Amino acid sequence: MPNAYQLLSTAELDSLIDQLEQATDEIRAKGLKLDMARGKPSPEQTALSRPMLDMLTSETPLVDGNAIIDNYGTPDGLPCARKLAAEILDVDPANVIVNGSSSLNLMHDLVVNGLTRGIAGQEPWFRQGEIKFLCPSPGYDRHFAITASFGITNVPVPLLEDGPDMDVVAELVENDPQVKGIWCVPKYANPTGITYSDEVVRRFAALKPAAPDFRIFWDNAYAVHAFGDTDDKLLNIFEALKDAGNDNLVYEFASTAKVTFPSSGLAFITASEADMAEIRAAFAVSRVSCEKFSQFAHARFLRDLDGVREQMAKHATLVRPRFELVERKLTEGLGDLGIASWTHPHGGYFVSFEGPEGSAKKIVSLMKELGVIMTGAGATWPYGKDPKDTNVRIAPTYPSLEDLGAALDVFVVVVKLVAARLERSSR
Amino acid sequence: MPNAYQLLSTAELDSLIDQLEQATDEIRAKGLKLDMARGKPSPEQTALSRPMLDMLTSETPLVDGNAIIDNYGTPDGLPCARKLAAEILDVDPANVIVNGSSSLNLMHDLVVNGLTRGIAGQEPWFRQGEIKFLCPSPGYDRHFAITASFGITNVPVPLLEDGPDMDVVAELVENDPQVKGIWCVPKYANPTGITYSDEVVRRFAALKPAAPDFRIFWDNAYAVHAFGDTDDKLLNIFEALKDAGNDNLVYEFASTAKVTFPSSGLAFITASEADMAEIRAAFAVSRVSCEKFSQFAHARFLRDLDGVREQMAKHATLVRPRFELVERKLTEGLGDLGIASWTHPHGGYFVSFEGPEGSAKKIVSLMKELGVIMTGAGATWPYGKDPKDTNVRIAPTYPSLEDLGAALDVFVVVVKLVAARLERSSR
Repeated sequence: MPNAYQLLSTAELDSLIDQLEQATDEIRAKGLKLDMARGKPSPEQTALSRPMLDMLTSETPLVDGNAIIDNYGTPDGLPCARKLAAEILDVDPANVIVNGSSSLNLMHDLVVNGLTRGIAGQEPWFRQGEIKFLCPSPGYDRHFAITASFGITNVPVPLLEDGPDMDVVAELVENDPQVKGIWCVPKYANPTGITYSDEVVRRFAALKPAAPDFRIFWDNAYAVHAFGDTDDKLLNIFEALKDAGNDNLVYEFASTAKVTFPSSGLAFITASEADMAEIRAAFAVSRVSCEKFSQFAHARFLRDLDGVREQMAKHATLVRPRFELVERKLTEGLGDLGIASWTHPHGGYFVSFEGPEGSAKKIVSLMKELGVIMTGAGATWPYGKDPKDTNVRIAPTYPSLEDLGAALDVFVVVVKLVAARLERSSR
Repeated sequence: MPNAYQLLSTAELDSLIDQLEQATDEIRAKGLKLDMARGKPSPEQTALSRPMLDMLTSETPLVDGNAIIDNYGTPDGLPCARKLAAEILDVDPANVIVNGSSSLNLMHDLVVNGLTRGIAGQEPWFRQGEIKFLCPSPGYDRHFAITASFGITNVPVPLLEDGPDMDVVAELVENDPQVKGIWCVPKYANPTGITYSDEVVRRFAALKPAAPDFRIFWDNAYAVHAFGDTDDKLLNIFEALKDAGNDNLVYEFASTAKVTFPSSGLAFITASEADMAEIRAAFAVSRVSCEKFSQFAHARFLRDLDGVREQMAKHATLVRPRFELVERKLTEGLGDLGIASWTHPHGGYFVSFEGPEGSAKKIVSLMKELGVIMTGAGATWPYGKDPKDTNVRIAPTYPSLEDLGAALDVFVVVVKLVAARLERSSR
C-alpha cells in the first residue's frame, strides 16, 4: 500500500517540503537543548531511592548472619543480597553471585573468561580462530561493543515480535562451532521493548550447540520493569532448561541500576551449578571480595520481591506518562501517513522507531542540528550498521514531560521532512 | 657462622627435640583456633570508619560540582574522589580514575587489556607468543595469580633490602621483548615491608624496555600505611620519569581498602596522559560508570590528605603494638639462635620471616596442625615455589593482641622444632 507522501503530486510534495523546512527553521531559532539519548531514569525516579541512604548509620550492626560486612570475605556477596537477587530472578540463591554495581561489567568479565581461560575445559577462545557472537538486532549497543572490542565477529540475527528468529539462531548455533555466544535482552528488549515468547525461550533452552563452550548471555535487565497495566511474563529459562534436559547453557544477568540508582545499584549473575563454580574460580582471581555496604543497604531498603514490586510501582507512575506521551504524539503526528511504525512496550526504557529506508541517519542528524540529542542511528546494530538505515531508538524516561513533548514535536516534523525529501528524491 | 643448633651434640639435639615435641603436644591439647593468614585489619580498625556511614542521608544534596551522584555519568569517578586519590598518590587528578572497590580488579583489567586489545598500538599479547611478567619475590600472591591464570609466565626476580635487583630487572626488561610487565609493591612491600630506595625508583623510571607495550604495575597499596615513628619516603615515580625523560611506562594503583573498609573502599589508578586515554577507552567498554555513593561518602569522611593522615594515625595506634609484639616475641624466642631472620617494617601489613632451608612448608603445616592458620608456605613466590622453602609471611593485624601473642608463642616453638629436626636429619 502506498504511503501518504507517495500519493502526493510532485508539486504538493514540494509545497509540503517548503512548509516543513519553514517549521524546522522556527525550531532551530528556539535553540533547544534536549536529550533523549540514553535509557536514564529521571531525577524524580532516582529520588525514590533516597530513603536507602538512611538504612545504614554508624550504629548499624555490620553483620548479616555469619557474614562480616566491614571486612574481607563472602566473595559471592552478602547472603541478604544474594537472596534478594535470587527472588528477582526466581532462582536458587546458592547459584547467585552479587558483585559490583554493573551487570555489564559482569558480562564483560565472562566474555574475557571465555576468551582468555576458556569455558568448560575448552581451549581459550583466542586460540580457536575466528569467534562469533550472535546479535539479535536491533539490540543493545553496549553488548555489541564488548564483543567487538575483542575482535569477536558480531553476527546480526533478526529480532522478531516474539524474540530472535530461532530458525536462524538454531541453524547457526547448532552447526557452527565458532559461534560461542548470543546477546539477549529477553524481557522488554532494548530497544524494541518486546518480550520473548514461551516458545522462543523453550527453543533457546533446547539448543544443542556445536560448541561445548557456547553460552547464552541472558541479560534480564528489565525483569521487574513493567510500567503499564500488564506485565509481560517471561518464562524462567532455567525451568525451561530442566524441561529440555539441558544444562550449562545460560549466564543470566540483572541489576538494580533502574530499581535504585543507575551506576550504584547491585549487579548479579546466575547460571548452572557447574558454570557458577567456573565463574567463582575466575572471579577469585580478579576480586578479593565485593563491596558490601551497598549490598546491605539495598537488602534493607528493598527487603524482598514484594519490596521491589512496591518500588517499581512508584517508578511506573513516573515512567508510564512518558511512554503514553510518545504513543500519543507519534500517533497524532504520524499515525495516518504510513511512513513509519514504532513499538508499544509494556515495560523497559525504550521505544523502537522504524522510518522509511535510508531515513534513520538523516533523522538523528537533523534532530541534533535542532538541539535534540538521540541515540546515534545504527547504534542498535552490530558495528553501527543498520542495513536499511531505518531504526531510531527513543529513550523517553529522562526528560521532563514538558521537554519530552517538545522533543517529540520536533521529531514528528523531522521525520515528515526526511520522509518527504526521500520521496521527492526518488522521483 | 654456625647456628646454635649446629653447636649442639647429637644427644643434646635429641633431648631438645623431645622437649619441643612435648611442648607441641601441650599446645595441641589446647585446641587453638587462631588466624594469621591474610593482611586483614582488625575489627577495632574497621570500627574507625563507622562515622563514614553517617556522611550521607536521604537529605544530602547528591551533586559534586556539576557531577550527578544518583544517575549515570562521570565514568572517571566523582571529582571529589579523584582529588582525594590524587592527593594520596601526589599526582594530577586529571590523570586519575576512581572506579570500584578493588585495586586488584583494576590491575586484572589492565592485564586483560594488554592481553586482548593490546597496549600502545601493539598487537594483543595473546598474539605475541609466550608473555612474561617479572615477579620480585617474595611478593604478593594475588598479583602472581592474575598473570598465572592467563598462562603468562611469571619470572621470579630477587627482592633485596632496597627493592628488586635492578641489574636483573634491567637485563630482562631491556633485552627480552616478551617481558611485558613487572609486579611491584614499592612501599612497605608485601611481604617484606621494605620500601624501594630512590635509586631503585630512578632505575625503574629510566628503563628502556625492549617491548613498547611493557608496563610497570606499581601497586602503591601501602602509600599512607606507616604505623611507627618513621614513615618511609617513596620517591614519586612520575617525577622520576620526568627526570629520566621517560613516559608511558607506569600504571600506579592504590585503594582505601586499609584506610576505611576492606572490600568496600575506593580503588584508583593513575598513569601518563596517553596511557590514561587508552585505559579510559578500555573501561568505557566494560563499565557504564562507577559506583558513586561510596566515593561521595569517602570524600566527605576523609576530606583530603590531612584527613587521611589523621585516620591512619588512629590505625597506627592499633597496628603498632601488634608489630611490636611480633618483634619482641621473635627476638625473645629466636633472637640468639641464628636459625632465622625476619623483617622490621615501619608500615604495611606483614613481617617476612626466613627460616632454615627446607623449613617453611614444615613450619606452616605444623602451625596448622596446632590450630594456627598462616599464609601457605610458598605463596609469596610465583607458582607457590619458594626455591629454598624458607619464607613464611606473618600477618599480625587481625588477631587481638592476646591471640597474636598466643600464636607467636606457638610459632617460636614450631620454628625451633622444625629447625632442630632439620639439623638432626642432616647428621
